[in-house]
Amino acid sequence: MIDLDPDRLLPVDPSQRDVARRLYQAVRGLPIVSPHGHVDPRMLLENAPFDNPAELFVTPDHYVTRMLHAQGVPLDALGIPRRGGEGEVAGPRQVWRTLCEHWDAFRGTPSRHWIEAELAEVFEVPIRPSAADADLLYDRLVERFALPEYRPRALFQRFGVEVLATTDDPSSDLAAHRGLAADPSWGGRVVPTFRPDGLLDPSLPGWAGRLEELGRAAGVDTGRYPGYLEALADRRRHFREHGATATDHGPPDPVTVLLSHEQAERIFVEALQNLATPDELRAFRGHMLCEMARMSCDDGLVMQLHPGVLRNHHPATQRDFGTDRGADIPVAIEFTRSLRPLLERYGDHPNFRIVLFTLDETTWSRELAPLAGFYPSVYLGAPWWFLDTPDAMLRFREAVTDTAGFAKTSGFVDDTRAFCSIPARHDTARRVDCAFLSRLVVEHRLDEEEAVETAVDLAHRLPRRVFRF
Amino acid sequence: MIDLDPDRLLPVDPSQRDVARRLYQAVRGLPIVSPHGHVDPRMLLENAPFDNPAELFVTPDHYVTRMLHAQGVPLDALGIPRRGGEGEVAGPRQVWRTLCEHWDAFRGTPSRHWIEAELAEVFEVPIRPSAADADLLYDRLVERFALPEYRPRALFQRFGVEVLATTDDPSSDLAAHRGLAADPSWGGRVVPTFRPDGLLDPSLPGWAGRLEELGRAAGVDTGRYPGYLEALADRRRHFREHGATATDHGPPDPVTVLLSHEQAERIFVEALQNLATPDELRAFRGHMLCEMARMSCDDGLVMQLHPGVLRNHHPATQRDFGTDRGADIPVAIEFTRSLRPLLERYGDHPNFRIVLFTLDETTWSRELAPLAGFYPSVYLGAPWWFLDTPDAMLRFREAVTDTAGFAKTSGFVDDTRAFCSIPARHDTARRVDCAFLSRLVVEHRLDEEEAVETAVDLAHRLPRRVFRF
Amino acid sequence: MIDLDPDRLLPVDPSQRDVARRLYQAVRGLPIVSPHGHVDPRMLLENAPFDNPAELFVTPDHYVTRMLHAQGVPLDALGIPRRGGEGEVAGPRQVWRTLCEHWDAFRGTPSRHWIEAELAEVFEVPIRPSAADADLLYDRLVERFALPEYRPRALFQRFGVEVLATTDDPSSDLAAHRGLAADPSWGGRVVPTFRPDGLLDPSLPGWAGRLEELGRAAGVDTGRYPGYLEALADRRRHFREHGATATDHGPPDPVTVLLSHEQAERIFVEALQNLATPDELRAFRGHMLCEMARMSCDDGLVMQLHPGVLRNHHPATQRDFGTDRGADIPVAIEFTRSLRPLLERYGDHPNFRIVLFTLDETTWSRELAPLAGFYPSVYLGAPWWFLDTPDAMLRFREAVTDTAGFAKTSGFVDDTRAFCSIPARHDTARRVDCAFLSRLVVEHRLDEEEAVETAVDLAHRLPRRVFRF
Repeated sequence: MIDLDPDRLLPVDPSQRDVARRLYQAVRGLPIVSPHGHVDPRMLLENAPFDNPAELFVTPDHYVTRMLHAQGVPLDALGIPRRGGEGEVAGPRQVWRTLCEHWDAFRGTPSRHWIEAELAEVFEVPIRPSAADADLLYDRLVERFALPEYRPRALFQRFGVEVLATTDDPSSDLAAHRGLAADPSWGGRVVPTFRPDGLLDPSLPGWAGRLEELGRAAGVDTGRYPGYLEALADRRRHFREHGATATDHGPPDPVTVLLSHEQAERIFVEALQNLATPDELRAFRGHMLCEMARMSCDDGLVMQLHPGVLRNHHPATQRDFGTDRGADIPVAIEFTRSLRPLLERYGDHPNFRIVLFTLDETTWSRELAPLAGFYPSVYLGAPWWFLDTPDAMLRFREAVTDTAGFAKTSGFVDDTRAFCSIPARHDTARRVDCAFLSRLVVEHRLDEEEAVETAVDLAHRLPRRVFRF
Repeated sequence: MIDLDPDRLLPVDPSQRDVARRLYQAVRGLPIVSPHGHVDPRMLLENAPFDNPAELFVTPDHYVTRMLHAQGVPLDALGIPRRGGEGEVAGPRQVWRTLCEHWDAFRGTPSRHWIEAELAEVFEVPIRPSAADADLLYDRLVERFALPEYRPRALFQRFGVEVLATTDDPSSDLAAHRGLAADPSWGGRVVPTFRPDGLLDPSLPGWAGRLEELGRAAGVDTGRYPGYLEALADRRRHFREHGATATDHGPPDPVTVLLSHEQAERIFVEALQNLATPDELRAFRGHMLCEMARMSCDDGLVMQLHPGVLRNHHPATQRDFGTDRGADIPVAIEFTRSLRPLLERYGDHPNFRIVLFTLDETTWSRELAPLAGFYPSVYLGAPWWFLDTPDAMLRFREAVTDTAGFAKTSGFVDDTRAFCSIPARHDTARRVDCAFLSRLVVEHRLDEEEAVETAVDLAHRLPRRVFRF
Repeated sequence: MIDLDPDRLLPVDPSQRDVARRLYQAVRGLPIVSPHGHVDPRMLLENAPFDNPAELFVTPDHYVTRMLHAQGVPLDALGIPRRGGEGEVAGPRQVWRTLCEHWDAFRGTPSRHWIEAELAEVFEVPIRPSAADADLLYDRLVERFALPEYRPRALFQRFGVEVLATTDDPSSDLAAHRGLAADPSWGGRVVPTFRPDGLLDPSLPGWAGRLEELGRAAGVDTGRYPGYLEALADRRRHFREHGATATDHGPPDPVTVLLSHEQAERIFVEALQNLATPDELRAFRGHMLCEMARMSCDDGLVMQLHPGVLRNHHPATQRDFGTDRGADIPVAIEFTRSLRPLLERYGDHPNFRIVLFTLDETTWSRELAPLAGFYPSVYLGAPWWFLDTPDAMLRFREAVTDTAGFAKTSGFVDDTRAFCSIPARHDTARRVDCAFLSRLVVEHRLDEEEAVETAVDLAHRLPRRVFRF
């Protein structure tokens, strides 16, 4: 049985736990602000019941598939079809059984906590996954999925989501967002996020094709550099009209470069002809990050920067099963020198804002907190991806608070495509922040009433303010 | 109200806190040894009353100005004049109000703790800064400043400072130090520190001019390499005669290079003619660090090395407001390979001593503790600048004690220009070291009497011994 | 007196300590599996009494000699002879006195704990080293050494060692292992480990000579590349026949390279003629790591990778006293890109297994846990060398569990040449793992019975399984 203790993740010392409990009481019921994630808005538009536990909890979640793969389970046994179409793909009940048989491997991981919280609190089936109970649990979940109160829109409301940001292709017509806005029976707030990576990095396969798409979407000739810039600005406008408040950028590194218009134009032309050198392509990518900053000064969209992952580390997995299967591995990154050109030009601009995320913890105290502790435009993003865990969140606060305080951090960002895990993820962040704050209280570094106020800031006020909702 | 709890910063578990309290009792009243800092010795020579709270607590303290700047406050609103002289500069009362209005931004930071401790303990005005109380607090402080017991010399005595090291230009005549030494009414010990960065790095603007100054100060022709070396040795002698026991070095990285006399001389000549390449200039800087080590073997001055900061990250701030405004951002650094040439030649010399500081925490367990755990000359500097905080100090002990023990660490170094914060900073370090030691006691890794002895070592005996006072 | 508290290293909070005690009870008596270390098997073959305390505890242990050297003690005062043979070498009683006089320098270090545990628990002489008791302690120990129950084989049995892996030269005839296997009075399991560093890196001095030795051992002409590969495969077979289950690799960095047979052969030929460039030599070393992986797919030997140490940082020490004197200093390392070629080809192979160790803690959460959390072949090695300490072990679990869980970690590896410290080292690891698990229990992240099961996994089942015993 899953038995979610009301004190879970709170510190063990009795007097500190008492403080943490009081802080947590002040934030546990606050609405959820989700400024960055990967939920498909069509799920809310269509509001269809969930298919089955495998397709909800296993197959699309690379946190889960990577861990099972690490235990020796082939990806097709997890319901992921081979790209060529050949081979058997396990059916959903079999996929679910495989997860349940390997449940022990998830001990100590946040994936286990999120899924157990979803089972117990979202679907009210508090059975711990195991080989013995796999079928029972599967059947109970399928029963739940059929009921109206477990459809996406009902859950959105039950979860108390105040605003949910999705991640979208710049050429997208945002039809699902439009559909939701036009639906009188829908009262939630779901906003798109402008994610132009594929357009800004000419070294990525398919760049030219995506430029053409962009041109069609914007009604502009993107075969020339000025048209390309104009089309990007146009699509940003389109996104803002559909509620977007932010852009999102995931380059391999945070290098920024200030090219002249002429230099940039020259590389753009060469890149379209496949004549640009790797150094030129990289400079162009760094330049376009600065261009995005320039446009943010104009239109107020908040930049989010998520650098430092080597995508598709295992080429055979990408070839056979596609991307986002758990084979993305972080690398060390450097922010201080890399961001200097961008911040030199835009760091002091009153309208500019950039939120910096990292998978390299060493940058927290060394680079990111000092940057956020000087530049008015720079905010420290919450622990992200591999670091979106109780212990890493605590390390984050310990590493950055001394230098940047609380007010220059972004508040929690769930970054998930697993819609039903959203409450458990935000709840985890709230508990951990209360645990951290309770230590400051019992060490007499913060009064308890200040800690309550700070906890509410972190859970609700800061993400609203930082992401301009 | 500021309510400084007697148990602040001590661990929360009751039995551990009991141990920590006993350790702290053994060290709280010990004299302060301050082997590295930036207090202006003229302040003690002149012993004038402090002007006003803004000029004492805000304008000159880049920890404070950077944080307010990060909240969107322009630097001229903090009393910092533009270099061109144009524009309005806020007056001291307005500057103080601005700090008070933004006091919440400092929650969880050491700056808050230091300033609140100064208000409550040094000036006995325990009013927490806030928009409402800004003027009241300002007026109360101004009243205090007028009283004789709040003048610098009285505070120096009240603080229990046994020795205070300043940081000084090699060409300085050390007039303030001489003045203090000659003053029969002054009994304190204030010693200079030889800081030759501007002379050792020919890539810095103004190098040639500073060489001329050095030549005048030493009465030697510094236009030739042997004269330059002779002048440096002469000024070191001058500093030692005025009480100096150490040199201080803050290069961008800790690279050291062993050039032959002929190679060094050739680059020196080229550098004076602006003909040296960047690689040559960097090699020369690395060579001069080795030359400083060589001279230390002769004269016994302890080398302090503080590398790894990219100074003036935001050029517009430097252009408009000058240096030391909070825009210095750390970078990753490498010690193992960089220091090898220097340590290869001098690491085993019985008279040589070097204290290594870092802003890159990753080097503590990986490089610095192993180096200090082998070389008799190498000591581990205390957590510095952005890391001079309760949580980082604890991480320091956790990272290095296993490999280097306690005896190869330097003891606390306040590195401050904020004279009145000295007691709060040393007190913080003492509390945190007691917290760390109390854990070793309750985990049965150290007897309590050994822990008491170690706490006294860290607070008093080690800095005296390491810095050769 | 040494007073080893039964609760040592367990967490201080009373309710958490209760949990930790129960977990520890479940593992404290389990047999010791030691999959990686440097004990000389002849010690067990010959079963001679230990000579004296200096030769057992000081002279051969670079953890101890480096720390004393760091306090200013010359290495010849520790019984290490100069290579040239000149100079006085201290006798064993004098060496022991020197250790005892400097015992305070070891406060807070694991060396102190290991040695005190050896004195109190292995030799039942619970006298803390000190100048006053040095001779008494020396004499008591010498008495013990003379008794049969303190000879190596008796201790092996008393320690409860289930299996002990040594580290061996590929050209070794493994005579000691054969001797043990053939001895009817010996029932223990001692297995060799294949350590081919000196053969795989043609940039190391003496490479060609070692190739000849290898050729003689394998009866193959290693002057040609195919013969060289054949000889390596042959010696792996020889090792497997004598019980080996693993290979061990300690290159300066983990770079791997996939060369074609022709490319590799060309560099091999050039290297033998001293014509290869440094880049070619490095590529060849990286290629040979991939060749070892290829052979592991065939023969099932588990690869261990221990990269990232700059050996013999102080050349004068190496010249005068040889290697392994404590002057090996870690450097930052990169795994994600470096291992990609090897993992691209072998990472998914069902027979392949690689255990990754590091001295650069930053790679735990950033690179190693994500790699082990995707690749079925990749396991996370235990904290190693400078990180084999209570606090670093805890940081390891905190850094990797979120992403890799427990099942992809290797279990404890003592890596020691100090035979008598083996029980204390494994006991430390067990206590720290119980401390970590107890936190998960009291924070309601793991049920206590799951924690017990996990503690037993970490202490016993995992190392058996991971290293294929």
